[in-house]
Amino acid sequence: MSDQPRVEIYTKAECPYCEKAKDLFDGKGVEYETYNVTDDDELFEEMVERAGGRKTAPEVFIDDELIGGWDDTSALEETGELDEKLGIANDDSADTVEHRKLLIAGTGIAGLTAAIYAGRANNEPLVIEGDEPGGQLTLTTDVANYPGFPEGIGGPELVNDMKEQARRFGADLINGIVDSVDASSRPFRVELTNGDVYTADAIIAASGASARTLGVPGEDELMGYGLSTCATCDGAFFRDEDMLVVGGGDAAMEEATFLTKFADTVYIAHRREEFRAEDYWVDRVHEKVEDGEIEIMKNTELIEIHGSQADGIDRVTLVHNEQGHPTDRLEDPETEEFDFDVGAVFFAIGHTPNTAYLEGTGVEMDDEGYLRTRGGDGGGQTETDVPGIFGAGDVVDYHYQQAVTAAGMGSKAALDADEYLDDLERADSSGETEVAAADD
Amino acid sequence: MSDQPRVEIYTKAECPYCEKAKDLFDGKGVEYETYNVTDDDELFEEMVERAGGRKTAPEVFIDDELIGGWDDTSALEETGELDEKLGIANDDSADTVEHRKLLIAGTGIAGLTAAIYAGRANNEPLVIEGDEPGGQLTLTTDVANYPGFPEGIGGPELVNDMKEQARRFGADLINGIVDSVDASSRPFRVELTNGDVYTADAIIAASGASARTLGVPGEDELMGYGLSTCATCDGAFFRDEDMLVVGGGDAAMEEATFLTKFADTVYIAHRREEFRAEDYWVDRVHEKVEDGEIEIMKNTELIEIHGSQADGIDRVTLVHNEQGHPTDRLEDPETEEFDFDVGAVFFAIGHTPNTAYLEGTGVEMDDEGYLRTRGGDGGGQTETDVPGIFGAGDVVDYHYQQAVTAAGMGSKAALDADEYLDDLERADSSGETEVAAADD
Repeated sequence: MSDQPRVEIYTKAECPYCEKAKDLFDGKGVEYETYNVTDDDELFEEMVERAGGRKTAPEVFIDDELIGGWDDTSALEETGELDEKLGIANDDSADTVEHRKLLIAGTGIAGLTAAIYAGRANNEPLVIEGDEPGGQLTLTTDVANYPGFPEGIGGPELVNDMKEQARRFGADLINGIVDSVDASSRPFRVELTNGDVYTADAIIAASGASARTLGVPGEDELMGYGLSTCATCDGAFFRDEDMLVVGGGDAAMEEATFLTKFADTVYIAHRREEFRAEDYWVDRVHEKVEDGEIEIMKNTELIEIHGSQADGIDRVTLVHNEQGHPTDRLEDPETEEFDFDVGAVFFAIGHTPNTAYLEGTGVEMDDEGYLRTRGGDGGGQTETDVPGIFGAGDVVDYHYQQAVTAAGMGSKAALDADEYLDDLERADSSGETEVAAADD
Repeated sequence: MSDQPRVEIYTKAECPYCEKAKDLFDGKGVEYETYNVTDDDELFEEMVERAGGRKTAPEVFIDDELIGGWDDTSALEETGELDEKLGIANDDSADTVEHRKLLIAGTGIAGLTAAIYAGRANNEPLVIEGDEPGGQLTLTTDVANYPGFPEGIGGPELVNDMKEQARRFGADLINGIVDSVDASSRPFRVELTNGDVYTADAIIAASGASARTLGVPGEDELMGYGLSTCATCDGAFFRDEDMLVVGGGDAAMEEATFLTKFADTVYIAHRREEFRAEDYWVDRVHEKVEDGEIEIMKNTELIEIHGSQADGIDRVTLVHNEQGHPTDRLEDPETEEFDFDVGAVFFAIGHTPNTAYLEGTGVEMDDEGYLRTRGGDGGGQTETDVPGIFGAGDVVDYHYQQAVTAAGMGSKAALDADEYLDDLERADSSGETEVAAADD
């Protein structure tokens, strides 16, 4: 197709967001060129220059126009502008595209397990990839504790295997992001951000959670210019710099350990005295502390990031108080504020559930947006208080957040949805118009 | 060792209980000879003759004495008599063998996943194999819906991979069956059926559930002589016979489908009109019905099995009533009773949780013996009402009962136990004597 715009993607090794960008264009059947900047200083400089100084992969260009990294590309995809730039937009977006028995939002471990089970139950699920296809596990290079893989398995590999398994059982996976769900009548009406509309008899929300940011000065300007939420994506760009990891959970420990491969010294700033991380990761970090590769700054919080898009991060401003949570104690004379030189900052401070599209449906959520499901013993554990809408994975679970716990919930959600759909069919075929939980 | 008694095991291909018997002797370091009767009619006749007419594998002999199948061997192991027969009994059984931070009862998917996570959390779990090492999944030849294996995986293979993974992270697996738990003081005192006693700061009950029987006349006498709870173990012994599967869930459908490989016709007797099984299995069965290999007898129950240990099963007595549950309607003139010729009967009528060893601890159970755990949102979902005792897998879950749901719960139980043990250590090191849930 000679009239297709020229798509170029700068990539690097071990870069899950690069894979996502490629998957996105693959899914559209759009051809592109890739330039791998790993170990190629000249190409790396070219990328940074064309990207206006940003040091992050991927960088996407369409007909020489800078689109940006995965977030930027995905944002354009949400609004349909990406398709316009590619010349493949279609205009009939306001009509309902298709009716499906079951729609699953998300292709992380929960969504894919739900898709495997729902496929096997002949519910032919339509699975909407969301803005992070494959979910958070695609950011983990080595999953050691998913049961069944004694040697460990790469996160992207596990995700791809589950996708294949889901497709084998009849699941359809499509690119797209759910924008809103209308639960005021049945079937549910599900609108994607590109304008496509599907109707569905049941919905499994498995749309996961996204990396949280702090909202401190400098953050918006420097995101992608030295500030990142993905060490495996961007760590290698700041070789021999001092790096700061913000956080105290498993992700923070894992990222800090990973970054020692590149950093001069990795600093961990944690607002409390104790890490939340599992012993395994705390031990790994302490080994690196003994080796002089990591330094831990307890009871310390980041309040500002200094630098420029041209030169990257120069330094950060930190606050410290022995009693922990120093930003809650800024008036306390014991709280010290000081500047600290680092060349890169990685946030690993948790996630926010992606549930905004369910607002207005009547689904109950807590203050942070996590879905409340029925839980308890027996069946129906993944039911929300809207019959026909089920929740699984990190949209529900704010505590365990393991791949295997997400998988367990995905399986339950598909089995719960199957019972709901069976009841619905039985009610339909017996001429009932009311959809109620059958007492069977 | 020339003074070791001679151990002989008749085995066949695809026989999980044969593997268990071999594992048991391997675990003791006892040598044995195996005779594989698959496709060897002469050897098969020899086995049946030496076993007094029983047609079931394995058959174990010690110094020419018939020990029996897995159940018999395992029963002797429970009482310590097996070690006596093997000349390896030790007499210091009344003393405490060892103290462990965490003891896990069961090596099914829930127990092994708990062991993987607990190992990674440095809790060095002691894992007691129980009377069905590897749990129910070892009876499934092809696990198609465990996420991560697009081609499917054999049940025993998945279990062995998880055992290896657990050992890598520091879990110790030992043969043995928990007989009782004393929760009247801490640490818990755990006695095995062979008399060994361990103490433990925390316990995860992941001891699963065992195949249920009906309690009808003929059952005790003919178990192993044509009556079985494991189609993959024993189906091949009744080639070209008519076979009856009793049940209506996934297991019944799967066993019936499997048995068509050997049977003249497979009959399924189910007490209700509708099967409980997932659509996938119901569809598979209906394909076999169309092919003339399976016949379904709805609203039908088994009330007696006729035959002898010498000649196997001759026929069964069934009752039928269009309204379902015919044994509840024996007085109803519409209920017909009739004899039916079959050569083998397979029970697939569910399971009973293995929780008797927790009686007297104060752990809450329902009428069937399933453990009640806290559930709900957030942490502590696997807590029982006795602090320090956690439940995971089929001892808790009477509804979903999937490998991946058991794995999810096993992971949660290990994480919950880790928090409990951390709190305990903190309380100990701060000089507190009271063990209470820390409000942290």
